[in-house]
Amino acid sequence: MAAIKGEVTPLLNEEDLKYQIGEAIVVCGSVYKIRRMSSFAFIVLRTGRSLIQCIYSSDYAAFDLENIKENYCVELKGEVSEDNRSKLGFEIRIKEVAILSKPAEEMPVVINNKKLAASLETILDYRPITLRNEKERAVFKLQEGICAAVRGFLMSQAFTEIHSPKIVYAGAEGGANIFRLDYFGREAYLAQSPQFYKQMMVGVYDRVYEIGAVYRAEKHDTSRHLNEYTSIDLEMGYIKDFKEIMEMETKLLQEIMASLERNYKNELNLLEIVLPKVEEIPCVTFAEAKEMIHKAYQREIKDYEDFEPEEERLLCELIKKQYHSEFVFVTHYPTSKRPFYAMEDKENQQYTLSFDLLCRGLEITTGGQRIHDYSEQVDKLLKRKMNPELFESYLMIHKYGIPPHGGLGMGLERLTMCLLGRSNVRETTLFPRDISRLEP
Amino acid sequence: MAAIKGEVTPLLNEEDLKYQIGEAIVVCGSVYKIRRMSSFAFIVLRTGRSLIQCIYSSDYAAFDLENIKENYCVELKGEVSEDNRSKLGFEIRIKEVAILSKPAEEMPVVINNKKLAASLETILDYRPITLRNEKERAVFKLQEGICAAVRGFLMSQAFTEIHSPKIVYAGAEGGANIFRLDYFGREAYLAQSPQFYKQMMVGVYDRVYEIGAVYRAEKHDTSRHLNEYTSIDLEMGYIKDFKEIMEMETKLLQEIMASLERNYKNELNLLEIVLPKVEEIPCVTFAEAKEMIHKAYQREIKDYEDFEPEEERLLCELIKKQYHSEFVFVTHYPTSKRPFYAMEDKENQQYTLSFDLLCRGLEITTGGQRIHDYSEQVDKLLKRKMNPELFESYLMIHKYGIPPHGGLGMGLERLTMCLLGRSNVRETTLFPRDISRLEP
Repeated sequence: MAAIKGEVTPLLNEEDLKYQIGEAIVVCGSVYKIRRMSSFAFIVLRTGRSLIQCIYSSDYAAFDLENIKENYCVELKGEVSEDNRSKLGFEIRIKEVAILSKPAEEMPVVINNKKLAASLETILDYRPITLRNEKERAVFKLQEGICAAVRGFLMSQAFTEIHSPKIVYAGAEGGANIFRLDYFGREAYLAQSPQFYKQMMVGVYDRVYEIGAVYRAEKHDTSRHLNEYTSIDLEMGYIKDFKEIMEMETKLLQEIMASLERNYKNELNLLEIVLPKVEEIPCVTFAEAKEMIHKAYQREIKDYEDFEPEEERLLCELIKKQYHSEFVFVTHYPTSKRPFYAMEDKENQQYTLSFDLLCRGLEITTGGQRIHDYSEQVDKLLKRKMNPELFESYLMIHKYGIPPHGGLGMGLERLTMCLLGRSNVRETTLFPRDISRLEP
Repeated sequence: MAAIKGEVTPLLNEEDLKYQIGEAIVVCGSVYKIRRMSSFAFIVLRTGRSLIQCIYSSDYAAFDLENIKENYCVELKGEVSEDNRSKLGFEIRIKEVAILSKPAEEMPVVINNKKLAASLETILDYRPITLRNEKERAVFKLQEGICAAVRGFLMSQAFTEIHSPKIVYAGAEGGANIFRLDYFGREAYLAQSPQFYKQMMVGVYDRVYEIGAVYRAEKHDTSRHLNEYTSIDLEMGYIKDFKEIMEMETKLLQEIMASLERNYKNELNLLEIVLPKVEEIPCVTFAEAKEMIHKAYQREIKDYEDFEPEEERLLCELIKKQYHSEFVFVTHYPTSKRPFYAMEDKENQQYTLSFDLLCRGLEITTGGQRIHDYSEQVDKLLKRKMNPELFESYLMIHKYGIPPHGGLGMGLERLTMCLLGRSNVRETTLFPRDISRLEP
């Protein structure tokens, strides 16, 4: 009988080819670009993470250059040859080629220039192929790096990873912006956040996190909103103060930057990214922030309960000027604007023990301490004219005991947008979903 | 101005307490069990991953034992004291206690026995609190370990992590078992798998993976089916043969077992788990398997195109007896039973270059090589009376070139069920969703 042994072919690591100068190699990839010179041609091969410069010359190649075209997938046999003009420090002299697959048509968008010369609309319409551009794909390689750093750091801090359901019986964040679906004759919803589940799981593992999809049926079509996004959620028990959550987030951000610098240098260089520095993060209350903006910019305060987007931008500008930080924590948001599970400040119940983190004008995190006492939570639900019976399984944790706890949610795509200095969150979303886009 | 520095308090690692014999410590947790003896009491404290035996005696404690009760969340101050009768090799002599939170009611289910004495129905109804049982939570700690092992191994093999959308414009697997939702006036679906997206992304990074939620609106209520589950999906380009995917999966499974043995020893011991050995995995074709079962058990073959669940069980029994393997690959499933993107065997188009992996009677993986040629894919869609225009964005990859590729999908909860030897997939699903369960 045939058997499978788990013998995995060692992978070619493009960067290591520089140690194989003079050696024969085999490499697979897609022909990214062919540049014909007078007596030879450059063939740029696109592999999983690199562009490799190869040289075709009839002096050593045993095939006709006419046989290969851009976007063919090929296996090349050749020799590694030192070349300091090439970005990787070497090139490959091609000897043989095997064609593995051919496209049926020419590309409708030019993908092999330094930067894609197309509108965001076109880039998104053709996402499966525009992502093949070296800069476009570098964005999502960095996004992978963010996730890997988050997991590595949180595991080191004894957070347990969970997978909570996305089809739910009740919305956690309230409001009308929730997707409904028919679940075998019952009405069900798509989770707006893993809020209830991560709180439940604090009662099990003390500290938990999840990186998963969340859904908001928001109808406004802005450069910062999506209807489906990836949320980095964490929740931690036995906190003494909600500032512990902000300390954890600050450390997490420091680790993300360090990890990207360490493991994704090529992508950062390619995109010419200067990551924001995270040292101390200044911390102001919501009321102080409103006042600061008002004073610095002689701006009338129109809404005492929430920020206008312009105010978030101005606050970041101000903080950067005064404290040289691209991040700022805003704490103590008004109770009226926070969900029913937010813990109120015992000194002034108009405000919650909550925070947002702003970066470069954009809100990238919402967090805070949660109510853990059963009667406090039931009272707050009743005060908001909400029916505690609808939250019976959630309220089990309060009823049977849960430690003081809090947590945060951070949008992965928004964080990427912010770190990369992009102006539209769709640029940093693999396949964005908005009110007018459901495809690809 | 206040500032947050990212100063994270070093964590108490329960196992390391044995190096702190004689030292004063502070530890937070939930009171799991109080056992009163004649002159003292055992207080078992449940922390994030351990149960710690603590001793209360009025000789050294500065409070009355009546002040604390089971399921209180507390901070204990005490001294680490050697004790070989305790599982961890030490105990904590309690000196002071601070009560952090109290439950409002007594537990409706006894959670602090070795094993929960309750029906699966009750365990699931009270999931937020029954998970606090040490054995229940160990299941999902192991599930975390599986995910960590998968990511670690796949990254080492140059797979890039992706996040594909779950709200989609078309189902990948066909059939009626798909959840529909209203997406701003358009009909949309919940993804049955990330199939189209992982294939698209092979064109970008050569090798990709995703661990994420998938949805099947299947109406049958069996011990093996869920309506929402977590799928481990991978897809790899530049394969020479679909057996490369099986080799990769075999190596992946070997790494999962090794990683669990290394990092989750306590949980494996607690649950008395003997992980299945993964060495060589026997490999039979679908037709051979049918014949083998028929011969060995004198069983009439009723369905030549698919397995009955009983046949899967018998095949695993047979393979174990003859080849001492708890895993078996079944290859070359009939074309009629595989989706439209499955590549057919050029030698016999009745069969596909596909496989399932069975373990302990259960199918845990489906995989295979995909069609990469544009006209081959369009022809197959037309032959199945499907409209290629509906798959326009998916077919971009074929039209503009994609390497030979294939991949697999493995249900995380089913894999956990199989490795832990459970009989119902709900036991290894954190918050299961089935036709009658939408809560908690």
